[in-house]
Amino acid sequence: MSGRTTIAQIARSADVSVSTVSKVLNGHTDVAEETRRRVQRLLDERGYRRRRAAHHRGHGDLIDLVINNLDSAWGLAILTGVEEVVESAGIGLVISAVHSRAALTRRWLDSLLARGSQGAILVLSDLDPAQREQLRRHGTPIVVIDGVSQPPPDVPAVGATNFAGGYAAAEHLIGLGHRRIGVIGGPEQLACTRARIAGYRAAHEAGGVPIPRGLLRYGNFYHDGGLRAARSLLELPDAPTAIFAGSDMHAMGVYEAARQSGLDVPGDLSVVGFDDLNFASWTAPALTTVRQPLHEMGATAARTLLRLIGGEALDSSSIELATSLVVRDSTAPPRTLER
Amino acid sequence: MSGRTTIAQIARSADVSVSTVSKVLNGHTDVAEETRRRVQRLLDERGYRRRRAAHHRGHGDLIDLVINNLDSAWGLAILTGVEEVVESAGIGLVISAVHSRAALTRRWLDSLLARGSQGAILVLSDLDPAQREQLRRHGTPIVVIDGVSQPPPDVPAVGATNFAGGYAAAEHLIGLGHRRIGVIGGPEQLACTRARIAGYRAAHEAGGVPIPRGLLRYGNFYHDGGLRAARSLLELPDAPTAIFAGSDMHAMGVYEAARQSGLDVPGDLSVVGFDDLNFASWTAPALTTVRQPLHEMGATAARTLLRLIGGEALDSSSIELATSLVVRDSTAPPRTLER
Repeated sequence: MSGRTTIAQIARSADVSVSTVSKVLNGHTDVAEETRRRVQRLLDERGYRRRRAAHHRGHGDLIDLVINNLDSAWGLAILTGVEEVVESAGIGLVISAVHSRAALTRRWLDSLLARGSQGAILVLSDLDPAQREQLRRHGTPIVVIDGVSQPPPDVPAVGATNFAGGYAAAEHLIGLGHRRIGVIGGPEQLACTRARIAGYRAAHEAGGVPIPRGLLRYGNFYHDGGLRAARSLLELPDAPTAIFAGSDMHAMGVYEAARQSGLDVPGDLSVVGFDDLNFASWTAPALTTVRQPLHEMGATAARTLLRLIGGEALDSSSIELATSLVVRDSTAPPRTLER
Repeated sequence: MSGRTTIAQIARSADVSVSTVSKVLNGHTDVAEETRRRVQRLLDERGYRRRRAAHHRGHGDLIDLVINNLDSAWGLAILTGVEEVVESAGIGLVISAVHSRAALTRRWLDSLLARGSQGAILVLSDLDPAQREQLRRHGTPIVVIDGVSQPPPDVPAVGATNFAGGYAAAEHLIGLGHRRIGVIGGPEQLACTRARIAGYRAAHEAGGVPIPRGLLRYGNFYHDGGLRAARSLLELPDAPTAIFAGSDMHAMGVYEAARQSGLDVPGDLSVVGFDDLNFASWTAPALTTVRQPLHEMGATAARTLLRLIGGEALDSSSIELATSLVVRDSTAPPRTLER
């Protein structure tokens, strides 16, 4: 047997039909597990490589973007970054929103395979191990942006330096003299939430400032979550003088809670957001926030996926793009008088 | 000849090859115009109907959404409305953004046809007549949302009652006692801009209030456009006491111009937006605005397209969904003192 291995050769060796080999390649589930294993082993041993459409890209090529929480400027910024790169590569972008944080459905995966999508970018959404395995068998690469959990090491991931961002936010507030800094994370289970809170804690430790107790809340990244969490913090007998809000939409909720309590921002309460969405600079006072390069994260994920589709090796499977603190008008030293 | 007309029959009658008929059907341009006409006439006469994938929808089915200004909460709201309907129909949604208001390219149309897209929704973007004809020949229906210009009557369109919205905004301000109401439209060439300004004028006429001169500006629908236009209005010797801002982002620019001029909203200046994006209710003061049902507009366009793909007739080719005035805290009677 010389040259390229064909499906027919694999079928003969495995003593199955060509259509069964094709089903295994395409990740169909109506193949007996034992058969699937035998065929897969042969495919792996013989180094069978599907003809990759990426090598002769045509107008009909597609990639999939799956995005949780499409209904926010946050998701939009990532989407536009992905779209720009994919569009200039002449590839169509199929978008699916995962509604209500449900896991990706079987139907989604079937559709992705049926439409011959070349690869997928997953934003804030996870595949279960069986789904990942199905895509792997089918030779369909994925890239994860802000995975719900830490992705397995073999899944390329793009994120922001959330730890450094949380650190910079807390360091800025500590530097202004704040000692009771509230923190409103995103959903507790998210890797980015945990990294930001870890950064907040590390900045306290580095500054020799005790981490205040009872000032941690979790939110949903939206305005209402920030409002609820800030109310709960501002009702405390020893309320914080500053709040690190975990998202810009949270920060708008904190502004509203402050107005409702008759507190001036930043006179009575300093506020730091996270993301630097467009409204952060319009709002009054303009919001001090940790900028995430969301557009660039989308573009980087798309470029990474195109390289994988093209069969290139990656220098590093995981990339974190830098966050940066943008100081505007919502932070100031705490009032010296007791509250 | 009985039963369904086939491509082969058409080819024989037209004395061309099957591949030429197929090219005509698929809208390819490398067919001599005279030949194309002859084949098209036969296709029309014989009532040839392509087998429509919509009749046996599979996992691989796609529709295209083309959206100008994807980088705004406005486009996002439409997108999520489309996505919801398309997703629940089990169809993939391919998204293309039209960058910098350029017309849709040849490449986009080729890609749409190559990927076998079942139809397209165009938001704030236009096809030229040749492109429309190519899609028509290929049997690919389109639906337009907020067309740049008034779409031809045979193109189904979904919009909002922009005239009624402009009317309601001006009527509200006139009712509060304002007589010098500035207006910041979107880009001058857009049909929605013209309809809103016409509504503003009609409300003046209906109220027996003279339409003030020199208080009309055009913007880009973004914050910076609103800021520039508002500055120019507020610098007038006889500045307006209220501004109808034409978009919520414009309104945020007006807020900023007011702050820069030391004017209180609504004490010194009333502001009405258009859209009711999420931040309109968070901002301080909360924004009085004309609500456009953007999500529903997206969903309606998607449902209309699915009906066309399924070969159903439409009751009406053009639908305007109702706008509604949402009165919040940014509007008040004008101060009686001279400014």
